[in-house]
Amino acid sequence: MPDSPSARLSLSRRRLLTGSAAVLGAAGIGAAAATAATRSEATAPTVPFFGPHQAGITTPPQAHAHYIALDLRPGAGADEAVALLKLWTTDGARLTAGTSALADTEPELAQAPARLTMTVGFGPTFFDRVGQSGRRPPSVRQLPHFQIDRLEERWTGGDLLLRVASDDPVTAAHAVRVLLKNVRTLATIRWTQRGFRNAVGTHAPGQTMRNLMGNLDGTVNPTPGADVDGVVWADGSGQQWFAGGTTMVVRRIAMLLDTWDELDPDARDLTMGRRQDSGAPLTGTLEHDVPDFTRTRDGIPIIPANSHIARAHARTPAERFLRQAYNYDDPPPAGTTTNAGLIFVTYQRDIDTQFLPVQRRLAQADALNTWTRPIGSAVFAIPPGVHDGQFLGQGLFE
Amino acid sequence: MPDSPSARLSLSRRRLLTGSAAVLGAAGIGAAAATAATRSEATAPTVPFFGPHQAGITTPPQAHAHYIALDLRPGAGADEAVALLKLWTTDGARLTAGTSALADTEPELAQAPARLTMTVGFGPTFFDRVGQSGRRPPSVRQLPHFQIDRLEERWTGGDLLLRVASDDPVTAAHAVRVLLKNVRTLATIRWTQRGFRNAVGTHAPGQTMRNLMGNLDGTVNPTPGADVDGVVWADGSGQQWFAGGTTMVVRRIAMLLDTWDELDPDARDLTMGRRQDSGAPLTGTLEHDVPDFTRTRDGIPIIPANSHIARAHARTPAERFLRQAYNYDDPPPAGTTTNAGLIFVTYQRDIDTQFLPVQRRLAQADALNTWTRPIGSAVFAIPPGVHDGQFLGQGLFE
Ligand code: HEM
Ligand code: HEM
Repeated sequence: MPDSPSARLSLSRRRLLTGSAAVLGAAGIGAAAATAATRSEATAPTVPFFGPHQAGITTPPQAHAHYIALDLRPGAGADEAVALLKLWTTDGARLTAGTSALADTEPELAQAPARLTMTVGFGPTFFDRVGQSGRRPPSVRQLPHFQIDRLEERWTGGDLLLRVASDDPVTAAHAVRVLLKNVRTLATIRWTQRGFRNAVGTHAPGQTMRNLMGNLDGTVNPTPGADVDGVVWADGSGQQWFAGGTTMVVRRIAMLLDTWDELDPDARDLTMGRRQDSGAPLTGTLEHDVPDFTRTRDGIPIIPANSHIARAHARTPAERFLRQAYNYDDPPPAGTTTNAGLIFVTYQRDIDTQFLPVQRRLAQADALNTWTRPIGSAVFAIPPGVHDGQFLGQGLFE
Repeated sequence: MPDSPSARLSLSRRRLLTGSAAVLGAAGIGAAAATAATRSEATAPTVPFFGPHQAGITTPPQAHAHYIALDLRPGAGADEAVALLKLWTTDGARLTAGTSALADTEPELAQAPARLTMTVGFGPTFFDRVGQSGRRPPSVRQLPHFQIDRLEERWTGGDLLLRVASDDPVTAAHAVRVLLKNVRTLATIRWTQRGFRNAVGTHAPGQTMRNLMGNLDGTVNPTPGADVDGVVWADGSGQQWFAGGTTMVVRRIAMLLDTWDELDPDARDLTMGRRQDSGAPLTGTLEHDVPDFTRTRDGIPIIPANSHIARAHARTPAERFLRQAYNYDDPPPAGTTTNAGLIFVTYQRDIDTQFLPVQRRLAQADALNTWTRPIGSAVFAIPPGVHDGQFLGQGLFE
């Protein structure tokens, strides 16, 4: 069995950790990282854990993602938060490299990372809990209420965000369990959302995913490299410690598929401003043709002014963000047939200047609103990446 | 858009069908099947729909499976059941071939079947509802109560079973939605369970899946071909119409992972009778080594007599069945960390003679019972396969 000695130590180690939380020193993390770096057990592609930015943001989206919000337990503060972040750093470095976590009782489930990533974020309340209210990136605060919102408490807010994603659902489930059970005495789960996209191997690589309304979703997004980097990574001009970090918005948006299905194809395409089959804008023929919002026929815009893309389209270069959408499709409540929608996630340097103008415009008037309903909302600061020997978010505590 | 004319007809067709249920003739089914046979839109591997047996049983398990139990609506009888089965046959033939369903408003989501299969079963109550009590295969009846059972109504029973599985989670979700919405006025959902196994491409093909306890699960199973055929397919000696069919047991079994994780590796292996790392029996070194239940060390059996495999192992050639296990891992109820287990599914000619002796033995004494808890149970007759022009289960109504 891989890691047999540490597996056998796991029980006492875990007891130790959960009995007295803030005991794991930075030395332990360094050692774990070194082990992870050997990657001796990895049998599937890995995404590097260490670096200037956290993985899982500009990483091409994996097929399966868990978004989990946690709250620090009553009474917990900076010490407990640091203990938690050290545990996650240690275990995240190992798991994403295909090495079992230190307290891993199912090390075999860690052997095929399948592009496993772990991403950690801090909700607005986190900064208060750890006594660092003054270092909160200013735009990381609860979003204003929008008229379209039908938010449910059970999908909203959270001190901490844990995103775990992999192309393999078993690997993802195992990593989530390890990461959660190790911090059990420090934090409780507030909500968990599980999303999926097309599986690897069943669709052409790089093909835009389809959401459950049938549309290609993700066509217009910053391009990899300098473009997305400029949109996403904070430069530290606001908060020094936050350089290399980003902000995250998680909206849970239900799709009203029963009424959406009553629409004929033309009406659907006019609602979106794009064709469902090809994904092309109504003024073009191919998915990546640039929409022409000014073109008219008989004096009427071909792409309706209240269509989703006409409203969502950036009107200034500042209004851009990275979208990372996942489908959800949960068991429907009794008497209903469908409980599906989008885990709609965005990343941007600053929520106020990049995301909010667009969200406001959509809330005001977007033909799509008739068939969608925001039921959850949360925002997080995603601290920068870590280097070997550091722990995630360390800069906030220095 | 593929199938554009029929998509445009969808609304009126669906209204027609749901307004007056039993209107679709066998002619319609034949036409659909012919279209499906062209497979013009299929861009990923397909599993044949037509044949002597239903697909999805001896098919190598896909990565994602939905098991859904439905109840016929109050007052519905044979006419409504036949209407439902005709709809499912038509749409199942098309969808599994990579052709959109007739009333499909998201035809694009049907284009990559990724080994999509649809399997349909009849619960004990179904036979009464359709006035065919006398033709129920005798072993298809509620299982006896076992001492270990903690069954919850919400995971138990059902008039009808729909299993939809694919290597792509988006394809599976879409097929489920199409199949359910078309029969909305005929039946209601009783429960739905969603399971997963390792994704295609992330593990070596043919590798045994691991469950969330960490064990290789599915090592000892009938081998493809004559062996599994003999175990699974009914020969019609009991019920003529049932020749080529099989019976299905669905048990939802929660894993008590928190206490399982307290066990050290040796204790886990003794509980199972196999090693977690290699999957080898404690008397062997490779996964597929044949366990030797008679071997002792210091007079004590090496594979404990109350270990899971010692109790589960077939003691007569009759006691064999096909296991088809899927992991489930649902959002945990408030205050807990884990809601995981196995959707434990078996197929056999006859439940009484093949499955029950083993289940009784396990309920009586199985070391694993300390860490597992059956919370759902259902049995179904899986009618034989269909040929072009027939509908699923037609033999029962002739
Ligand atoms: C369930 C809810 C939603 C669905 C189904 C949806 C779907 C889509 C689709 C199909 C497209 C066109 C293809 C593409 O470029 O990806 C699109 C574009 C876009 N959406 Fe959404 N969307 C939803 C919610 C939102 C929200 C809440 C926002 C922002 C607050 C947003 C922002 C955008 C942006 C910026 C574009 C690109 C517009 C352009 O420049 O062409 N969407 N969306
Ligand atoms: C959560 C519950 C269960 C778990 C985790 C589980 C797990 C396992 C594992 C790991 C093996 C050894 C590898 C293999 O051959 O697949 C196994 C074997 C087996 N299990 Fe289970 N099992 C469960 C429930 C059941 C139930 C309810 C039955 C039947 C009523 C059953 C019947 C069998 C049989 C027949 C074998 C093969 C025994 C042999 O001949 O070696 N299992 N199971």
